[in-house]
Amino acid sequence: MDFDLVVRNGIIVTASEILQPGLDIGIQAGKIICIGAGLPATANTEVLDAEGAYITPGGVDSHVHLAQANAPTGDGWETGTRSAVAGGTTTIIAFASQEKTDESLFPVLDEYDKTSKDQSYCDYSYHFILTNPTTKILTEELPVLFRERGISSVKLYMTYELMKVSDRQVLEILFTCKRLGMTTMIHAESHDMISFIIEGLERNRNTEPYFHAIARPRIAEDEASYRAISLAELADAPMLIVHMSSEIALGHVREAQGRLLPIHAETCPQYLFLLSENLKAVEHDHFHGAKHVCSPPLRHDPADLEGLWRNVANGTVTTFSSDHAPSKYYPEGGKRLGLVDGIPRFAKIPNGLPGLETRLPLLFNQTPACRPEGKARLSLPRFVQLASTNAAKLYGLDGRKGSIAPGYDADLIIWHAGNTGARTIHQKDLHHDIDYTPYEGMEVGNWPRYTVLRGTVVWDQGKGVVGKMEYGQWLKRGRGEVLVGRTGNLPRGMLPEERGYWM
Amino acid sequence: MDFDLVVRNGIIVTASEILQPGLDIGIQAGKIICIGAGLPATANTEVLDAEGAYITPGGVDSHVHLAQANAPTGDGWETGTRSAVAGGTTTIIAFASQEKTDESLFPVLDEYDKTSKDQSYCDYSYHFILTNPTTKILTEELPVLFRERGISSVKLYMTYELMKVSDRQVLEILFTCKRLGMTTMIHAESHDMISFIIEGLERNRNTEPYFHAIARPRIAEDEASYRAISLAELADAPMLIVHMSSEIALGHVREAQGRLLPIHAETCPQYLFLLSENLKAVEHDHFHGAKHVCSPPLRHDPADLEGLWRNVANGTVTTFSSDHAPSKYYPEGGKRLGLVDGIPRFAKIPNGLPGLETRLPLLFNQTPACRPEGKARLSLPRFVQLASTNAAKLYGLDGRKGSIAPGYDADLIIWHAGNTGARTIHQKDLHHDIDYTPYEGMEVGNWPRYTVLRGTVVWDQGKGVVGKMEYGQWLKRGRGEVLVGRTGNLPRGMLPEERGYWM
Amino acid sequence: MDFDLVVRNGIIVTASEILQPGLDIGIQAGKIICIGAGLPATANTEVLDAEGAYITPGGVDSHVHLAQANAPTGDGWETGTRSAVAGGTTTIIAFASQEKTDESLFPVLDEYDKTSKDQSYCDYSYHFILTNPTTKILTEELPVLFRERGISSVKLYMTYELMKVSDRQVLEILFTCKRLGMTTMIHAESHDMISFIIEGLERNRNTEPYFHAIARPRIAEDEASYRAISLAELADAPMLIVHMSSEIALGHVREAQGRLLPIHAETCPQYLFLLSENLKAVEHDHFHGAKHVCSPPLRHDPADLEGLWRNVANGTVTTFSSDHAPSKYYPEGGKRLGLVDGIPRFAKIPNGLPGLETRLPLLFNQTPACRPEGKARLSLPRFVQLASTNAAKLYGLDGRKGSIAPGYDADLIIWHAGNTGARTIHQKDLHHDIDYTPYEGMEVGNWPRYTVLRGTVVWDQGKGVVGKMEYGQWLKRGRGEVLVGRTGNLPRGMLPEERGYWM
Amino acid sequence: MDFDLVVRNGIIVTASEILQPGLDIGIQAGKIICIGAGLPATANTEVLDAEGAYITPGGVDSHVHLAQANAPTGDGWETGTRSAVAGGTTTIIAFASQEKTDESLFPVLDEYDKTSKDQSYCDYSYHFILTNPTTKILTEELPVLFRERGISSVKLYMTYELMKVSDRQVLEILFTCKRLGMTTMIHAESHDMISFIIEGLERNRNTEPYFHAIARPRIAEDEASYRAISLAELADAPMLIVHMSSEIALGHVREAQGRLLPIHAETCPQYLFLLSENLKAVEHDHFHGAKHVCSPPLRHDPADLEGLWRNVANGTVTTFSSDHAPSKYYPEGGKRLGLVDGIPRFAKIPNGLPGLETRLPLLFNQTPACRPEGKARLSLPRFVQLASTNAAKLYGLDGRKGSIAPGYDADLIIWHAGNTGARTIHQKDLHHDIDYTPYEGMEVGNWPRYTVLRGTVVWDQGKGVVGKMEYGQWLKRGRGEVLVGRTGNLPRGMLPEERGYWM
Repeated sequence: MDFDLVVRNGIIVTASEILQPGLDIGIQAGKIICIGAGLPATANTEVLDAEGAYITPGGVDSHVHLAQANAPTGDGWETGTRSAVAGGTTTIIAFASQEKTDESLFPVLDEYDKTSKDQSYCDYSYHFILTNPTTKILTEELPVLFRERGISSVKLYMTYELMKVSDRQVLEILFTCKRLGMTTMIHAESHDMISFIIEGLERNRNTEPYFHAIARPRIAEDEASYRAISLAELADAPMLIVHMSSEIALGHVREAQGRLLPIHAETCPQYLFLLSENLKAVEHDHFHGAKHVCSPPLRHDPADLEGLWRNVANGTVTTFSSDHAPSKYYPEGGKRLGLVDGIPRFAKIPNGLPGLETRLPLLFNQTPACRPEGKARLSLPRFVQLASTNAAKLYGLDGRKGSIAPGYDADLIIWHAGNTGARTIHQKDLHHDIDYTPYEGMEVGNWPRYTVLRGTVVWDQGKGVVGKMEYGQWLKRGRGEVLVGRTGNLPRGMLPEERGYWM
Repeated sequence: MDFDLVVRNGIIVTASEILQPGLDIGIQAGKIICIGAGLPATANTEVLDAEGAYITPGGVDSHVHLAQANAPTGDGWETGTRSAVAGGTTTIIAFASQEKTDESLFPVLDEYDKTSKDQSYCDYSYHFILTNPTTKILTEELPVLFRERGISSVKLYMTYELMKVSDRQVLEILFTCKRLGMTTMIHAESHDMISFIIEGLERNRNTEPYFHAIARPRIAEDEASYRAISLAELADAPMLIVHMSSEIALGHVREAQGRLLPIHAETCPQYLFLLSENLKAVEHDHFHGAKHVCSPPLRHDPADLEGLWRNVANGTVTTFSSDHAPSKYYPEGGKRLGLVDGIPRFAKIPNGLPGLETRLPLLFNQTPACRPEGKARLSLPRFVQLASTNAAKLYGLDGRKGSIAPGYDADLIIWHAGNTGARTIHQKDLHHDIDYTPYEGMEVGNWPRYTVLRGTVVWDQGKGVVGKMEYGQWLKRGRGEVLVGRTGNLPRGMLPEERGYWM
Repeated sequence: MDFDLVVRNGIIVTASEILQPGLDIGIQAGKIICIGAGLPATANTEVLDAEGAYITPGGVDSHVHLAQANAPTGDGWETGTRSAVAGGTTTIIAFASQEKTDESLFPVLDEYDKTSKDQSYCDYSYHFILTNPTTKILTEELPVLFRERGISSVKLYMTYELMKVSDRQVLEILFTCKRLGMTTMIHAESHDMISFIIEGLERNRNTEPYFHAIARPRIAEDEASYRAISLAELADAPMLIVHMSSEIALGHVREAQGRLLPIHAETCPQYLFLLSENLKAVEHDHFHGAKHVCSPPLRHDPADLEGLWRNVANGTVTTFSSDHAPSKYYPEGGKRLGLVDGIPRFAKIPNGLPGLETRLPLLFNQTPACRPEGKARLSLPRFVQLASTNAAKLYGLDGRKGSIAPGYDADLIIWHAGNTGARTIHQKDLHHDIDYTPYEGMEVGNWPRYTVLRGTVVWDQGKGVVGKMEYGQWLKRGRGEVLVGRTGNLPRGMLPEERGYWM
Repeated sequence: MDFDLVVRNGIIVTASEILQPGLDIGIQAGKIICIGAGLPATANTEVLDAEGAYITPGGVDSHVHLAQANAPTGDGWETGTRSAVAGGTTTIIAFASQEKTDESLFPVLDEYDKTSKDQSYCDYSYHFILTNPTTKILTEELPVLFRERGISSVKLYMTYELMKVSDRQVLEILFTCKRLGMTTMIHAESHDMISFIIEGLERNRNTEPYFHAIARPRIAEDEASYRAISLAELADAPMLIVHMSSEIALGHVREAQGRLLPIHAETCPQYLFLLSENLKAVEHDHFHGAKHVCSPPLRHDPADLEGLWRNVANGTVTTFSSDHAPSKYYPEGGKRLGLVDGIPRFAKIPNGLPGLETRLPLLFNQTPACRPEGKARLSLPRFVQLASTNAAKLYGLDGRKGSIAPGYDADLIIWHAGNTGARTIHQKDLHHDIDYTPYEGMEVGNWPRYTVLRGTVVWDQGKGVVGKMEYGQWLKRGRGEVLVGRTGNLPRGMLPEERGYWM
């Protein structure tokens, strides 16, 4: 029982328990090897005092866009992952993205590997975005991608001209991923509704940023979500719908979950905290709303926020991620692409908000750790599920990431004890390479005091980011876990195999 | 008060009442001009004795395929409409169909007019099937089609490679039709689900007729129906979903109706009486199932029939039509197109069943007129709504067709009095030009004794079809009535006009 | 064809049709005997010109409290029925009420007969309120009540200390009524919830009239409605829930109707037009709110009104009645019973509002006859269903009341032609014996110009009430019609008879 | 780090994780003090080898009837708790029950304390059954019961003549318990429905045991569950509905949970594994069905079992308990009370089944530990939630019972490693004092090899029950945790405090 690091006297929180105060976490070679009272320290043991502080698993942010070719002014690996650890996130899953013209996924992956290599402050993996699922890719490349390259999840888009796949292609991917044991993520908005509305708005010269929120109405998400769930039901395949923003769409998920369909839901901070009024011009800056352009868009009504929170609390939402996909506001090539000859053209504004660093403090602020009972929106174990555990399990990192228990990587957030950690969010204090935050001025009751990654302190609020850029490791992921429902759940005789159309 | 014809002493049934026995219907110049007790007859007055018999409005069958180019062995105008009047139907609405390559709708319409001219035993109109809604068609032709040519409804397909329109096109049509006051009908099945399954079945050589029912699962209808309703909700436009066969899809309709969306539903006899077991081979004829190939397909379970009947009875279903779209079984060019080199290929079997003549007796058989109380599935007024009234109103024939009241065309079905009209359905007794009926051997408790069209007896069960082929008139239709919900019902600020993307 | 009266040239509206303008209604001996164009008039024929005016069936108000012993300052037969005809209502169904101590229903009935005899301007019947359903009453008296005395409906209360029956008694009555073919009406509010809250409010001295609306929350109606429906489902018996005011409770009804349970719903003008803000004190009159005390209470939110209107329009609501149950505001013995030593005590305020006279104009004002298309909440045929037809059918008056067709009593409302009938509602113009109207100052687009009862004009807006008090006839009612769903609809083996616990 | 006991090399399962194989659990003074790899053992350390075996927390059975006066042939403390540990249960919560005539709860409690003292093989607490919630009890005794006597939960009955409380009393208890922080459990069946049916069945001499299942139909549970939820919603109070057996009732719970109402659900093995066919006579024993008489009764259809399993898996069900409430079959005074003069009288059969010992093996058998993937109905963490964790949290034992983590009591089930633990259930092998098991002959894939209670092995499958009867400790319970939803969740202004009727 020789420890490299002992974290002493914190209040450990897992996805199901708040352990009694006063326990120690014993860490060796980057892994938790022991949890107990009064663990012994030797001369070689570093000790970190967490007395009275909550300790939660290092954050797993499973939806992060970094260094994507289509976002030249966005965050790169260095700044993005620096921002991650400064906000308590120790693992991110970014996106390697097939272009429609690519013949093979592997050159894309190799290139993305090259970009990220030795550039990450935190551990990381990628999902693969499929835009052109050829037969070769489905039958030959995906098995290799998963089994040899450790990428166990793909993401699809039902919208965006350059990305979208057809319902038929969604089916082909779902069937293939199910067979391989891979997880399918899907961006569900009706492309046809949205493109129809955008064209109408442009025809009528309604192109200010606010019209972005008009152009992508809730019903576009509701319909596409229902469609996606139906496709997954036909394929008897697990699926996660990303960045859900509509209570009706989440109602479809909840109904499916009730029938034990393996349908998972993700939501993001922006849909829980921000409204479309942010898309309007402010004094002196008619283009200001561009900062809040993301898809799905911010919704219109406080009741929308409440509806989302309800689904966070009632268990329907599976994961909580940042969808960090920012572009800078001021430089050319960023949000300003939506200013054409000085005229706002919302449809040309790059989509996405920054949020990797603020994700966990914003959510933690809604737990009883930061507010009196009765005002908390979720319990601390539910925070852990949403912040870390569920994403780790769903994406094949279970056993390594997402919990505080012997055997797991020693990835920890040590919060400030008691009420000593309150802070106001300011852009100037953040570590991303973006020139604004949509949460400017919001107050949170706590902030990570230390972030520990594999036994090493990488963020110390007193000193800043103390980890090294090349410390982050690439994670070979395994088969994800189905967290709700199950496959094989269709009535007898309804499985594709039984019906004669699937091998 | 000089009558050409007086129908005496029947029991008149309207969409809301069963009038007291003993009333007379006074008819002049083809129209009902008076209903009363003891109407006087002069020497010139023909008298038809209906004592003790129910009299219902002449049937309106709003979904009939006749003389369509793609069904060479199907029914033509002469045989189809002969069959109609023999079964109590006095008005049909058939389909003029745009081909994808057509530049203008009008040559198609002219051609179809030519085909039907002087060839119909009953009154008739057409819906127009749109497969390629060009801007010119939407902006220039549809207004003329409606206002000058009296065609106030269009039909769309979400499936079939040669017919289907995209969701975007559905939106364009819905918006246009709403503005014009036209009604949009839609065939809602997911093309992508179905084509994916068909290909899988063919790959695995599962091509017998029964696999047709596997290839188009209920979920394909459920998803497409939800999608169609969502598109109509976005457009704030009335819509009817044709030939619904799934209780879940009808649940979506009912939910929408509850919110006052103007969504109408149609079902057909085949989905109320027949199951997919009919698609299986019978002794000596492995291709027999082809006779029961229609889309959506016959469903698998008696519970499916019950679910449909429930929606017929609870008011969710708006119209009941035949979808008469038959092909002959024996000749080349008909159902046998699905036999390729002697091997059944379900995907090549022409879709559709005959049913124009049997539609009303089958439904009437479920009323208290034919069975003891407690065994009836619908009341007589509900029969009238489904058989005649609702279709007449929805498709712009109100005031002329669909009811028995002064001012209306004197279109009547006079049933046999009491229990004297029972009959077994046999192919040999039917008047269509098709070589089978899927209802062979079924017993019905009554059959139209007389069919009266505009004051003239055209079917006398004792004598057969006594009307003349050229007697049927083309009907210029007006604006249809929204029968459930209403447009303009969206929350304030949600109407397209208010949102800035519609003129 | 000799007519006593011909009503010329109106636009006749039935529960399913708006007939073409220009038809005449021929009336003989109080009954409609003919409807047609150009009916002949002889010297003895009175002619009433209705050119351009809508004609709807005389109103049937199936929920009216008159001359009940527990409401000494309420309306009596003379004033109540005078008010009825002045507002277009030609038939009312009032309540004979068993007291808990009564041994037999018949003395009560005899007494009520005596009270009403020759005192009614309109035709009338009674429901019987059961508060103590003894075995003798259930097995011996109800059959006589129905078959010999023509009372085919009973009403139950789930609340009010002096009236309420237990769930067990509800079951006994439902089973008995089902067997006899009688209709069961039920006031559904949770007595226990309400009495608990009232006691708490009184303990805390929260006794102003407004607290009446706090004391009977929506959930008390929602729960009791669900319970009542469950009891009816167990008994497989038809039921109507009276004066529904909650969208959730109506959702339970709609769900039951979807499953074909024979559950009917009633609502009243107050729940469609008025909110609880009316219960608050006004300047100079802190007790003013007492005028708006009824049960269920007026609800709090405009969204409540919208929810009700939605259920009126979507078909869930079966009947629309006044629940005319007023008490005078100023005299002792009326609303002022709720002022104890000058202190308001809401729980002692007599429940009920006046509304018999204003019921139909308020509803007609929501049809296309009074407002531009798109602003109308219901069609004219739906108005007729709610105003007259459905109540007539449900309560066993079909064939006599509720429609305009040969054979029916000549009960008509002739409205003003076109836009010529607008009027502002003022207490001073009304004919009841109550000293206020809750609809004071509301504008309606039309008002009955003539009310015709069995061929006699009883209300002429130019002359006032021109009928005679003794003209109103008592109506012996028959078996009511089940308008939604049906009995015998439970899954096989679930009927009480099959389950072995019912004879 | 000095351990009394080290459990080596098992696979620890918590409510959220399956830890990696090979970890040790270090125990000192009855508590887990450390979990880690390779924990050191000294000479004083006992070592238990669990290599390859799953270790789950000791079972918490929160619904057990022992030594209740009204069940003279049932289990007592000795035999019941012996049976518990033999089946892996280390904590039970039994029932102290107020009689209707009691004036104070404390003599009852004292008496029950006396009965259980030194008689329990496992740790234990009681719920208190309230049948007569007088003001004195609510205001004076419950606070003492909770704060001084450590009883933090009460149970109510909506049915049974001798036990039932009124809806009003339910409200009073809910409000009181909410204020005190106590948890309310409720048996939800409609007393009035059931008593009505029983009387009808008896009148018709339908009294065989099978009619018990007819007498308490699902709708009685559905209605009462909806009512109970409504009462809890009004009171804004947490509640658990015990032994739920109907999918519709669970649907009400799920809907409430979706709205964040704090409504919890319990189910029991009998509703997941047994059907009403067990209530029928078997050869040579027409009274055999009495062995399966419990309330709610076993349901009729395999689809009922599936519906329950669905709600177990989808998270709606919160706790899984035995409702061990048996009576012997053969002796007088037990089930035979239902044989009156040799004639079966189902209504007199004592209710309840034995199930304390078989509860956990039956459920564990449905996890992936016992069956191939795809056939498992629940995951191992979900098993732990249902078997132990949720009950411990809900009833105020968190931190001591229900999990495997430092600080918790060392209560463990060590299962057999791999596939070596299969067993067939036979009455002769069980440890209760009942003469039958309803699960006779069922096979389970594993059985607890060891049960460890506070660091002491109390069940060793090789040796039998090795614990001592007086070892079990009474547990003073604290405030329970709300596991779903939350109080204070009603829309603003709807809380009783805000509405003016609650202090």
